[in-house]
Amino acid sequence: MSQLAGQEAPLSSNHYEAALTQARELRNLTRDGKFIGSTSGFAPGIAQGNLVILPKDWADDFLVFCQKNPVPCPLLSVSSPGEPMIDLLGKDIDIRTDVPEYHIFRNGELAEKTHDIKDLWWHDMVTFVLGCSFSFEDALIRAGLSLRNIDCQSNVSMYRTNLATTPSQYFSGNMVVTMRPFKPADAIRAIQITSRYPKSHGAPVHIGNPADIGIKDLSNPDFGDAVPIKDGEIPVFWACGVTPQLAIINAKPPIAITHAPGKMLVTDISNEQLSVL
Amino acid sequence: MSQLAGQEAPLSSNHYEAALTQARELRNLTRDGKFIGSTSGFAPGIAQGNLVILPKDWADDFLVFCQKNPVPCPLLSVSSPGEPMIDLLGKDIDIRTDVPEYHIFRNGELAEKTHDIKDLWWHDMVTFVLGCSFSFEDALIRAGLSLRNIDCQSNVSMYRTNLATTPSQYFSGNMVVTMRPFKPADAIRAIQITSRYPKSHGAPVHIGNPADIGIKDLSNPDFGDAVPIKDGEIPVFWACGVTPQLAIINAKPPIAITHAPGKMLVTDISNEQLSVL
Repeated sequence: MSQLAGQEAPLSSNHYEAALTQARELRNLTRDGKFIGSTSGFAPGIAQGNLVILPKDWADDFLVFCQKNPVPCPLLSVSSPGEPMIDLLGKDIDIRTDVPEYHIFRNGELAEKTHDIKDLWWHDMVTFVLGCSFSFEDALIRAGLSLRNIDCQSNVSMYRTNLATTPSQYFSGNMVVTMRPFKPADAIRAIQITSRYPKSHGAPVHIGNPADIGIKDLSNPDFGDAVPIKDGEIPVFWACGVTPQLAIINAKPPIAITHAPGKMLVTDISNEQLSVL
Repeated sequence: MSQLAGQEAPLSSNHYEAALTQARELRNLTRDGKFIGSTSGFAPGIAQGNLVILPKDWADDFLVFCQKNPVPCPLLSVSSPGEPMIDLLGKDIDIRTDVPEYHIFRNGELAEKTHDIKDLWWHDMVTFVLGCSFSFEDALIRAGLSLRNIDCQSNVSMYRTNLATTPSQYFSGNMVVTMRPFKPADAIRAIQITSRYPKSHGAPVHIGNPADIGIKDLSNPDFGDAVPIKDGEIPVFWACGVTPQLAIINAKPPIAITHAPGKMLVTDISNEQLSVL
């Protein structure tokens, strides 16, 4: 009885303080080059973000793209040109140093990977931080659901789809989705819970037959790892923050900087601060 | 993008007044024996209810059964013994005359059908009114979803399942569900919308493979009518108010009175008054 299930356990203020301390320590370590790994599982209850940095000319149109596609591209913050500090999302966040690994795209191709972008920073760079499904995964776990990717200690399965985004002037492309398998009653519960997190891609965009959205083979994801799907489970698909990376590859801006997959910006904001209802 | 879809259009106070007038007129006609048909589609926006009347000894345990199984048995009202007026649900509702057709069960078997129960009424009869999926169907339609049973002008498809209710001392049995097919994105939207109506069975209890819940053949419902399921659609299953009728058949009380399927009590309460969030 899905509506009888308990509410997610609240993150107590003690837990939040502990997670906040961990988030800030992790950013300090990252800034000093002492942490360059995946942020998955760090600072539980704290929102992590996808990163996109673009020159002002391109950024203006990317902002339009995000506004037209808020489900794959839920904006947590956008900076003024040249502004490296993301005060809105946390204390002393310097976007040039506080992400464990950056991907540098030049003319739509991944050209370099680096651990800070101080040398690449200049006066008209605009930073976008987009919400990430890590936030709703935390809520699903607190509600008692099992996440296969976490049980398998693997990256979530991601797939290109045939679902077109709404194009802006320069940016376009199909949506990328993450997939998590659930028993049907848990899938219904997961739809209810993730509906509360629009800044974390919100409710699923598809459920059931992968071929409906152009996915040929669930065991062969385009990004991340495959996970087993058990008898009686149903695949549930959410919009994914990799979508804007595909749009960048399509748009071919002279430079674009993103985080490396799984190595996110850890903020000071709790997931619950971003929830609705 | 399900979370971008519009909210359901509100029932304006003018619409509510018109529907309320229609509800009261329908009850007056019913009381006078001039209306004995299905209440489906009447007084749109107004809640209709499933009826169960039991002698006090059995009613005490049925109340426990409802409390243990609020998804199939969402209680809108329970009366004191012998009290025929259901003031909580509307003006001058006399439960002995205001339902178009009653089914009389004796020792668990359907013994009679009648249009009023004045002759059967006595001092220790207790009336239960349970919420009905007509309320959330109204919300789904206002949100722009198509309901196959309404498009086909047929009764909703109902099936016995292998999902056990939680038994009380006398009452037990498996859950009955209604099924409505949707495209997957609409199924997700339907889960969101019906979650707002816990007094109308709330969110679905199952989605996808009917065999998971013991349904062998969707084209052969146990109650109501079969509806076609189109390519790419997914069946969505909600708990159904017929569940308590099966529990009555199992419990074999000396007498139990219910409404005839589809011929419900029309209340004065708007569906939105019963919604949450």
